[in-house]
Amino acid sequence: MSWTLTAHDLPDLARGATLLGTGGGGDPYIGQMLVQQVLGDGEITILDPEEIADELFVIPTAQMGAPTVMVEKIPAGTEPLLALRTLEAHLGRTAEATMPIECGGINSMIPLIVAAESGLPVVDADGMGRAFPELSMETFAVYGVQGSPLALAGERGEKVIIDTGADNRQMESFARAVTIRLGGVGHIAEYAMTGADVRRTAVPRTLSMALNLGRAIRLAREQHRSPFTAIADTLAQTLYSHVRELHVGKVVDVERRTTEGFARGKATISNLDDTGVPVEINFQNENLVARRGDELLAIVPDLICIVDHETAEPITTEGLRYGQRVRVLGISTPDLMRSEAALETFGPQAFGLSDSFVPVEQLSGP
Amino acid sequence: MSWTLTAHDLPDLARGATLLGTGGGGDPYIGQMLVQQVLGDGEITILDPEEIADELFVIPTAQMGAPTVMVEKIPAGTEPLLALRTLEAHLGRTAEATMPIECGGINSMIPLIVAAESGLPVVDADGMGRAFPELSMETFAVYGVQGSPLALAGERGEKVIIDTGADNRQMESFARAVTIRLGGVGHIAEYAMTGADVRRTAVPRTLSMALNLGRAIRLAREQHRSPFTAIADTLAQTLYSHVRELHVGKVVDVERRTTEGFARGKATISNLDDTGVPVEINFQNENLVARRGDELLAIVPDLICIVDHETAEPITTEGLRYGQRVRVLGISTPDLMRSEAALETFGPQAFGLSDSFVPVEQLSGP
Repeated sequence: MSWTLTAHDLPDLARGATLLGTGGGGDPYIGQMLVQQVLGDGEITILDPEEIADELFVIPTAQMGAPTVMVEKIPAGTEPLLALRTLEAHLGRTAEATMPIECGGINSMIPLIVAAESGLPVVDADGMGRAFPELSMETFAVYGVQGSPLALAGERGEKVIIDTGADNRQMESFARAVTIRLGGVGHIAEYAMTGADVRRTAVPRTLSMALNLGRAIRLAREQHRSPFTAIADTLAQTLYSHVRELHVGKVVDVERRTTEGFARGKATISNLDDTGVPVEINFQNENLVARRGDELLAIVPDLICIVDHETAEPITTEGLRYGQRVRVLGISTPDLMRSEAALETFGPQAFGLSDSFVPVEQLSGP
Repeated sequence: MSWTLTAHDLPDLARGATLLGTGGGGDPYIGQMLVQQVLGDGEITILDPEEIADELFVIPTAQMGAPTVMVEKIPAGTEPLLALRTLEAHLGRTAEATMPIECGGINSMIPLIVAAESGLPVVDADGMGRAFPELSMETFAVYGVQGSPLALAGERGEKVIIDTGADNRQMESFARAVTIRLGGVGHIAEYAMTGADVRRTAVPRTLSMALNLGRAIRLAREQHRSPFTAIADTLAQTLYSHVRELHVGKVVDVERRTTEGFARGKATISNLDDTGVPVEINFQNENLVARRGDELLAIVPDLICIVDHETAEPITTEGLRYGQRVRVLGISTPDLMRSEAALETFGPQAFGLSDSFVPVEQLSGP
């Protein structure tokens, strides 16, 4: 069912989107402030993907860049709509809705900025079902929607149109190169598609899932219930039905470097009593793989989320600090993100990992 | 007067364009082969800039990249015309002529490839009056023609449109970033302008100057006259009227590295008898400054050309070899390349040099 979003919903949405960011995705709190600024007392129509017309013309919008830069370089706020308008002009066709390409992190918010500024509705779906570091890592791409032409906008009105045909990786490469020249953050419109394409290729209802997760965590805290049970209960009603607590411990080391426009590194999380084998989590913007010694705990595209051990507040890789007490959650992804074609696009090998994908629900018991 | 160019002219044009490349500009011999391939027995109309209509719509075309890469990565040949067609589609306007943005090096040839493939005429003028390493270093830019929108094409049909408004340096930065992702070579169409703009902003008759220089050198050799006198006599009839022999010596050292898409380095040229102070020439793709110890011999935008000491064959920085016997020539640039605005755009400070510009004819006697 389609629904209406107001500024009141934004803190919960930001919390849920940070969880789905699996350590990356950029800080949604900055996006939240930008949405609040333009939305005010207004509201945004969120369209259910099952209810939209086959011919609805949708242009997704997003931010790209390294999360470590995004927290220091606040966007002007006009860039995402400029990207959409630039793509409209290039295509000679007007968007009837926008949509996230990524439901985790700040990209849950960018289409809302566009919606608040333009009055366009937002489709409740995305192309990552979480956060991924590259523009080519989209279910849209896996199931045949082309990312090109892509429009990229900068804060001083710079406009770039990139058309690499069916080669989404080359599109990602060019857009990344320009984004680095923009100082590390760019805003984009890409994967223009129809309502029928959305139903065929997108992960459905991920914006409402993020909102519901964030709300459930908050309500559990307010009502002194376990936020972890709230997370599990919320996800049980979605395509993300398996949740596993992979580890409880303390952050003892974080290696982080920003290279080639990405934040890469490794977090080491000991046990609470400092005995036993610590858990290591490797990330490229997002958490990619969790291991305890040689034991695989969870691997991309399944979600690996580090959260506060009591409040379940999700923690991004740039928010990790020595001594934090955390829980590591593994969350299963929907079947359309685990097909052979999907794993080729954003499975372990796409990140240079030698491990094969094993579903998190097979790696550990309930 | 407008004239006709055939494949017969290409070796002379290549030789002259290499001289005007002042060590850089990319190897025109590769461009020459590409032109020959598409031109065959055909001919290309070269338009005199004084004779074109005010409203003639001109889209210049060029290659960008590091010369060190250009000699290893041969273009498919279809990219420059694809760049022009991409810009035409973006502007909704059809080109009536193309033109070099740079008369030195391979960019003397790229518009000829476009002309041979499309039948378009080529305007006998350019925006550098030599070769420079960056797209923003154009007399077009100095006198108010905007580089944006720029279209860039890759060998696998990739198309990128860059619009940074009046900021030609940001345009250069984005195009350079994409070119690096293309493997180091890209093809572009930019600085779209009218015939009136050409007359106001371009360095006139530089294509015919390159051809005349190359022909004069060849004829002097064939007729056992001094090719150096032939160069001086040819230039005396142009806006480049002062030629100085700055040094005769042997190449004893060349430092060269390709960084950020440029070939940077330094050549050291001793005296023939190995006594005295050697001459050092710094380059960024092109030769920028020649010094003998603390003595300034010539500096950008004046031309510093290294040529074979007997045949006057011009030598590019990537062609420099230990032990080569060479002469270093300094050639004065036209007044429109020495104005305050011109020196801001491509004078010594634009390359990070601390020296002020001094005309080569003031630095050394005839």
